[in-house]
Amino acid sequence: MVQAQAWILTQHFEGFPTGSNFELKTEQLPEPQDGEVLLEALFLSVDPYMRPFSRVRMSEGDVMIGAQVAKVIQSKNSAFPVGSHVVGRCGWRTHTVCDGTDLTPVMSDWPKDVPMSLALGAIGMPGLTALYGIEEVLALQPGETLLVNAAAGAVGSVVGQIAKIKGCKVVGSAGSDAKVAFVKELGFDEAFNYKTVGSLEEALKNGSREGYDCYFENVGGPFSTIALQQMKDFGRIAVCGGISLYNDTTPQSGPYPHLTMIFKQLKMEGFLQTRWEHKHPESLRRLMAWMKEGKLQCREHVTEGFDNMPAAFMGMLQGENIGKAIVKV
Amino acid sequence: MVQAQAWILTQHFEGFPTGSNFELKTEQLPEPQDGEVLLEALFLSVDPYMRPFSRVRMSEGDVMIGAQVAKVIQSKNSAFPVGSHVVGRCGWRTHTVCDGTDLTPVMSDWPKDVPMSLALGAIGMPGLTALYGIEEVLALQPGETLLVNAAAGAVGSVVGQIAKIKGCKVVGSAGSDAKVAFVKELGFDEAFNYKTVGSLEEALKNGSREGYDCYFENVGGPFSTIALQQMKDFGRIAVCGGISLYNDTTPQSGPYPHLTMIFKQLKMEGFLQTRWEHKHPESLRRLMAWMKEGKLQCREHVTEGFDNMPAAFMGMLQGENIGKAIVKV
Repeated sequence: MVQAQAWILTQHFEGFPTGSNFELKTEQLPEPQDGEVLLEALFLSVDPYMRPFSRVRMSEGDVMIGAQVAKVIQSKNSAFPVGSHVVGRCGWRTHTVCDGTDLTPVMSDWPKDVPMSLALGAIGMPGLTALYGIEEVLALQPGETLLVNAAAGAVGSVVGQIAKIKGCKVVGSAGSDAKVAFVKELGFDEAFNYKTVGSLEEALKNGSREGYDCYFENVGGPFSTIALQQMKDFGRIAVCGGISLYNDTTPQSGPYPHLTMIFKQLKMEGFLQTRWEHKHPESLRRLMAWMKEGKLQCREHVTEGFDNMPAAFMGMLQGENIGKAIVKV
Repeated sequence: MVQAQAWILTQHFEGFPTGSNFELKTEQLPEPQDGEVLLEALFLSVDPYMRPFSRVRMSEGDVMIGAQVAKVIQSKNSAFPVGSHVVGRCGWRTHTVCDGTDLTPVMSDWPKDVPMSLALGAIGMPGLTALYGIEEVLALQPGETLLVNAAAGAVGSVVGQIAKIKGCKVVGSAGSDAKVAFVKELGFDEAFNYKTVGSLEEALKNGSREGYDCYFENVGGPFSTIALQQMKDFGRIAVCGGISLYNDTTPQSGPYPHLTMIFKQLKMEGFLQTRWEHKHPESLRRLMAWMKEGKLQCREHVTEGFDNMPAAFMGMLQGENIGKAIVKV
């Protein structure tokens, strides 16, 4: 009999999450039945999407949603032998009994010298999000200029590096001088701290006098209104996230974008990486190859201890992390 | 020596246009030189775009921008013989001397029983706008459900009819009961008066319980915020106009659309018909054919007298017209 710990959403978030939204629960897990496995979490992910999705995918009292890298410690499912590793949508739990439905084996040839936590980051969902946003939504072309905000985050840092691989000019916005220094190390052509530039409009103009062909949107809100004005005609915008909006109790308002979209003939598309799930295996291999070639650096911000999951989540929403926010059990 | 009358923009519009923004001027025109023609306006167009474009394309003191159907009454340009008809971007003028640069001959086989004013409407720029929005931007497919607002206007009324030709369900929003009756006559499946429905959300749901695949946007503003919520996943939005925003002195604000765009994976694109100018001749022939087959009804709202151009323009911005607003000299 195994005891699992799990973090419960006790009540829906109102505004910025607080400790009182969460409760740590202990449960006795049943023995795995035929077709089932028992998992032990090694790394858990905290991601911005959990905040808006909590409203639409969870009820109060549910275990917090989320992915983890786990080790199979008991198995009655031949697809997942004992000792193998999986990425699972198990939620915030130390141990899980489940059938294989929501499990993906970690790449069988995952290199020994690569931390498996990257399967939650650059070689996982955030990396795929960056890749599909660039290739499927923006169809970014060599020589184009790309703007990305939340540039030092799990997705943004990969976006900029893939755009460099594709021969583009990359301008990044981030929320601290340390983050700006980090994305410059990654090879971004220009970067600025949006919190300290006097004028965002000027910062964007300094980043690219000719404007932007593409804009990878992670932030939304007032940033987006100003950035839209700096797009070139026929500019494309991939709407991946809106972290500046997730904690609103009443939705923030800004000027309607219609006239700018018409005059500049802009295209804007919201997307979720699940749309291209059929491409995941091949895409993960490409991300891994870029990493092994040194073209894709994968920084992580690791919080130790399952007890600290809510703190890691709230810290990530406040922008404490550089790179991917991970919890190590 | 010919005298021309012309309407001048005396000062840029601030808020809704008033009579004092315009001044009627008389000028003596020079004799046409080699390569030039003298035109006499028969029909002039007043269109919503003139309001936002006045800021970006005009200086105070300029003749108001706009297209007209004109007759060539003197010619030193063999491409435009005397007696032939042209569509010209001559602005609000009764007579014009110009070279052929901004002139397009009216289709040589224009049927005698079809009013030539339609070259400013359903078989002209507004018709092309409707066609390209549907085919190039939305790529509307048979069986899909389309929402269009300003549905009784020059563009909207053609949008709905083309969507019906393509085998779609069409829901229209318009600003009077007479307009609603008109678009139902045109074959729209559902239509409502947005000014009198208690809840726009309910009206949109009644129009299509399953939501909308496509949305042809002519209005912008609060309508767009509510309509976005009624899109199906992967819905497409063609942003053609934003007439509810054109007369703002300070830009109207509304909730940022990012989260809805992400959750529903919506695509939104602004466009101008000039992007597909190379297709105009073939497109105009298709529009004409649909009209001759009775599939495209072309209603006009005709104001008599060049003196009444500002009144016709302001009336159109206030929604007085059903169908295309035209001034007959």
